[in-house]
Amino acid sequence: MSTPDLTHAHVVRPEFYDVDPMGIVWHGNYVKFFEAARAALFEKFNYGYRQMGESGYAWPIVDIRLKYVASATYGEPVVVHCKVVEWENRVRVEYVIREQSTGRKLTTGYTIQVAIDVATREMCYVCPQVLWDRLGVSA
Amino acid sequence: MSTPDLTHAHVVRPEFYDVDPMGIVWHGNYVKFFEAARAALFEKFNYGYRQMGESGYAWPIVDIRLKYVASATYGEPVVVHCKVVEWENRVRVEYVIREQSTGRKLTTGYTIQVAIDVATREMCYVCPQVLWDRLGVSA
Amino acid sequence: MSTPDLTHAHVVRPEFYDVDPMGIVWHGNYVKFFEAARAALFEKFNYGYRQMGESGYAWPIVDIRLKYVASATYGEPVVVHCKVVEWENRVRVEYVIREQSTGRKLTTGYTIQVAIDVATREMCYVCPQVLWDRLGVSA
Amino acid sequence: MSTPDLTHAHVVRPEFYDVDPMGIVWHGNYVKFFEAARAALFEKFNYGYRQMGESGYAWPIVDIRLKYVASATYGEPVVVHCKVVEWENRVRVEYVIREQSTGRKLTTGYTIQVAIDVATREMCYVCPQVLWDRLGVSA
Repeated sequence: MSTPDLTHAHVVRPEFYDVDPMGIVWHGNYVKFFEAARAALFEKFNYGYRQMGESGYAWPIVDIRLKYVASATYGEPVVVHCKVVEWENRVRVEYVIREQSTGRKLTTGYTIQVAIDVATREMCYVCPQVLWDRLGVSA
Repeated sequence: MSTPDLTHAHVVRPEFYDVDPMGIVWHGNYVKFFEAARAALFEKFNYGYRQMGESGYAWPIVDIRLKYVASATYGEPVVVHCKVVEWENRVRVEYVIREQSTGRKLTTGYTIQVAIDVATREMCYVCPQVLWDRLGVSA
Repeated sequence: MSTPDLTHAHVVRPEFYDVDPMGIVWHGNYVKFFEAARAALFEKFNYGYRQMGESGYAWPIVDIRLKYVASATYGEPVVVHCKVVEWENRVRVEYVIREQSTGRKLTTGYTIQVAIDVATREMCYVCPQVLWDRLGVSA
Repeated sequence: MSTPDLTHAHVVRPEFYDVDPMGIVWHGNYVKFFEAARAALFEKFNYGYRQMGESGYAWPIVDIRLKYVASATYGEPVVVHCKVVEWENRVRVEYVIREQSTGRKLTTGYTIQVAIDVATREMCYVCPQVLWDRLGVSA
């Protein structure tokens, strides 16, 4: 079985309210860029927030890290490249943000999510089958 | 029956992420300052978001206006003075934001909310009795 | 001289962080949608934030109003239709936000901006010529 | 020379707009809580954003990590405990966020900042003396 393409490239345009008095995007706003890209990534696999809810699982972020290499600026769109790299016991997505016009690397990072069974409020130590089915992977 | 004091003065400290590249608080962030002040105002009357939900009503904003007189800046706390001025058919709250250290007026505005009966999803054309009871007013 | 087209239609996708515990976009976030649309509108006329700065003028918002007719929800893109309707002494932009898939009207509103001469910090009681040149209008 | 107290405990009240459709504070908003606490921490040492600028240095975040143990909820204030733990070549601040009413641990994390010489735009491989003077430490 061939490995599916678990990547997505998401274009985000920093807005005026994202930029701080130093003239660069405030570091916390890159978490929004990660979120927008990850949401689009999972929707490609028909497992967006709505489908997650319908499947009986919530997927909270339990760990996030961002490293800042260079700064995004107003009016320069960025591309958030993201990829699911773990799916057995938890979901790990890795990110690289690049300036769209130059390809210059701005930010790298990852997020880790675990499944919560909504009915029991219990954390799942193994990811549920529905995730693997949607991503087209096996554990 | 004496009129109750339907006012609240709420101190907010603009943070770095609230300030735009012009060095002033981005105009949209004052809506957050209104929100924080209004939430505290209604909690004084034991009718915060939690109690609203328990009472069977939601109170969405249907109209908001802000006029900007001068700019809030980083590190200068502001005081949001707010007051309930209408409660019969809808709730109107009026706001004046002043720089705390100087008393200088920065922003004025209002919000209008209507009651939605959560069970029926219907808008109420008259405010529910629970509002008047909590505020200590009569319609 | 024919009147130029001073309109723009800007698509915005509400993200998870825009949505409140009621499951609808928090009312203050529509100010961000206005901002994104207005920024794109002025860039069409080669008078974005960067060009504003180069022209020696800043254009702060002095008045904003939003009326909420229906609610935007997660995952349903909206279209922000905006139009410059005044440019003589101040700039007034009017907005209508519609759900993209249905055309349903969600929000209406306006913003008013005045020109500030950056060098003198003085407010201009008449809009500067550069605005009219860029928009292709006369006062 | 005794070691100075490089800690600060900062109370933050999650607002309605911080809470997501799951009824908990959206994970990205904790970066704002870190920011508010760190800003207050450095102001205690007379080295807030304003003083940083006056000293000729900017201190961008180059690395941030957050681990989520439990969720903050609306209306429950949290305390952000933060501490400067490195200051020689870079500044590392560590954070623990606890629910104020119960002391329950919600989030842990750190930020790493480096000094940029504003005049030359160069990154400093050793922190400038002004930092150590303000913190009352030696390298």
